[in-house]
Amino acid sequence: MNEHTHLVIMAGGKGARFWPLSSEELPKQFLDVTGCGRTMLQSTLDRFKDLVPIGNVWVVTLAQYAELVREQLPELPAGNLLLEPCGRNTAPCICYVSWKIKKRDARANIVATPSDHYVENLAAFRTAIVDALEFAAETDAMVTLGMKATRPETGYGYIKADLSYASSRRKSIYRVDGFIEKPDLEHAKEYYAQNSYFWNSGIFIWSVTTVVNAFRVYDAQMSRLFEGLWNVYDTPEEQARINEVYPQCESISVDYAIMEKAEDFFVRPSDFGWSDLGSWHSLLEQLQKDERGNATVGPDVNLYDTHNCIVHTAGEKKVVVQGLDGYVVCEKDGTLLICKLTEEQRIKLFH
Amino acid sequence: MNEHTHLVIMAGGKGARFWPLSSEELPKQFLDVTGCGRTMLQSTLDRFKDLVPIGNVWVVTLAQYAELVREQLPELPAGNLLLEPCGRNTAPCICYVSWKIKKRDARANIVATPSDHYVENLAAFRTAIVDALEFAAETDAMVTLGMKATRPETGYGYIKADLSYASSRRKSIYRVDGFIEKPDLEHAKEYYAQNSYFWNSGIFIWSVTTVVNAFRVYDAQMSRLFEGLWNVYDTPEEQARINEVYPQCESISVDYAIMEKAEDFFVRPSDFGWSDLGSWHSLLEQLQKDERGNATVGPDVNLYDTHNCIVHTAGEKKVVVQGLDGYVVCEKDGTLLICKLTEEQRIKLFH
Repeated sequence: MNEHTHLVIMAGGKGARFWPLSSEELPKQFLDVTGCGRTMLQSTLDRFKDLVPIGNVWVVTLAQYAELVREQLPELPAGNLLLEPCGRNTAPCICYVSWKIKKRDARANIVATPSDHYVENLAAFRTAIVDALEFAAETDAMVTLGMKATRPETGYGYIKADLSYASSRRKSIYRVDGFIEKPDLEHAKEYYAQNSYFWNSGIFIWSVTTVVNAFRVYDAQMSRLFEGLWNVYDTPEEQARINEVYPQCESISVDYAIMEKAEDFFVRPSDFGWSDLGSWHSLLEQLQKDERGNATVGPDVNLYDTHNCIVHTAGEKKVVVQGLDGYVVCEKDGTLLICKLTEEQRIKLFH
Repeated sequence: MNEHTHLVIMAGGKGARFWPLSSEELPKQFLDVTGCGRTMLQSTLDRFKDLVPIGNVWVVTLAQYAELVREQLPELPAGNLLLEPCGRNTAPCICYVSWKIKKRDARANIVATPSDHYVENLAAFRTAIVDALEFAAETDAMVTLGMKATRPETGYGYIKADLSYASSRRKSIYRVDGFIEKPDLEHAKEYYAQNSYFWNSGIFIWSVTTVVNAFRVYDAQMSRLFEGLWNVYDTPEEQARINEVYPQCESISVDYAIMEKAEDFFVRPSDFGWSDLGSWHSLLEQLQKDERGNATVGPDVNLYDTHNCIVHTAGEKKVVVQGLDGYVVCEKDGTLLICKLTEEQRIKLFH
């Protein structure tokens, strides 16, 4: 555990996925999606246990979710919860928290992570994080974790690595050749067939100096807005001034604002069973399945003649499903969804 | 409204059908199965409005359901609720209440009906009841309503009428040639093809004199048990004595004890859209269906690409079903069932 290691958890997503399990009032990061007993946000913090002192953990979320974060992470210091007055994607979030961290600890090294992703192999995850952190601390480089593709997925962005150009300091870290947005199936198959393409995990590792400088260079306007608040950080004025400044920010992802423009971006290829859990189908892929391909979350779920289904009914005392193949069944707080997994992209139209 | 007309509602069934909607704690007769706003028991009483004074309405049920009856029929006089200490089928129920009615009104004419059947056409129902009541009052005959078969149903018993032998008093009432238990499909088709076979509705019409005499002749032992309590009826001792006597009764239906042995049984053919609602499928048949053959009970049920389903989710705020054909979906108090209608006979094995 290094005293200069900081963790930024981005927990502002409104994710409409997993309806009716999730909702705008209770997005995915605040839910125990996998039935493990911890919410996605809690699991995200759990993964960094023994890597980051709790005083160095920062959570950025929408103001409306403040109470949810306080309930779910009671150990988080009050001053480390940063509240966005409105959603502006990830760049303002990272810019704001980076300036805050810089004021607190000018020698900080930061891991910035989404709050709603799934990781299967914790040991491999920690090895990759430690590796990337050490590299970022030593070189002032920006690093992202690239996931080994296990299928020609069209739902993820890709990172092309220059495998001939391993870092001299870390054999396991390569220079990034380019970032690629979510491809069509044809391209996804092409990337999947090659070993130099990785899924973009959205997990970034960098020193506070590096990321602050990157904002200064690549998004000077946004950088000035948050640098201008230097003297009000950690004062009673801070939230009011943030509430003024935030709406002025462009709504832009850190990928667009910084990552794709930076010259020196590196990727740490990793294979720790990762998913952004972007769909019921991807959740089914991650959950433990019975011999008929079904995954269930709930106290008393009974399946008959049923295959390849995900039944997520944690609030139901008893569930009986007979004769379904390839469906999601979800009940939450008086709302019930039954839908073919092949049709799940239509769920957003249903509610 | 005739002051000597009495109504006996048999409400002691534990009906395990319609799980999880119904349960032993809350059987079908106490539920609003069709979503009409009234329970089956309440609807049964409603059908006799203006035909029977409320003081002449009798409900026989298991002691454990007493409070449910009082809640659902608050207008029922306290002394007209008869409580069985244990289930003994319909013969002891009819014998007990008949002796009670005889003591109250020796000139009574009685309609005895199940509490959990469905009737579509109320006007036709009332015409049939009035017809049969007048006939029973005039002739001391026993009458049952025979339902015009609308399909070769194997789930009902049949009545064979001697159509050449219409009553001289009522052209619409025929002598019964025989009672037939639930047939196999081959026989059901045969009966359906002929116009002299009717479904046995389980609704009986007779004078109190006739039914009491029938018990004396055909089940003297049971008759003596209840005749022996003549002096305790309507006294504080009644329930305690009934609790002693009831377990001594043979568990037997009135059909076996009386009906099949009686010489002079008559049938009033009727066609008022009747069902015993013995299955989810039969409920689907009775409910109003959309153009895709679906019936729903619930405040906000949304169906997509869905056909021939019954969705009974009165307690759910919102339901979305996509891509089902021929299923029952039912949620009640934290229990959810999804099952193919063709497999519904297995539901009893699921819970």
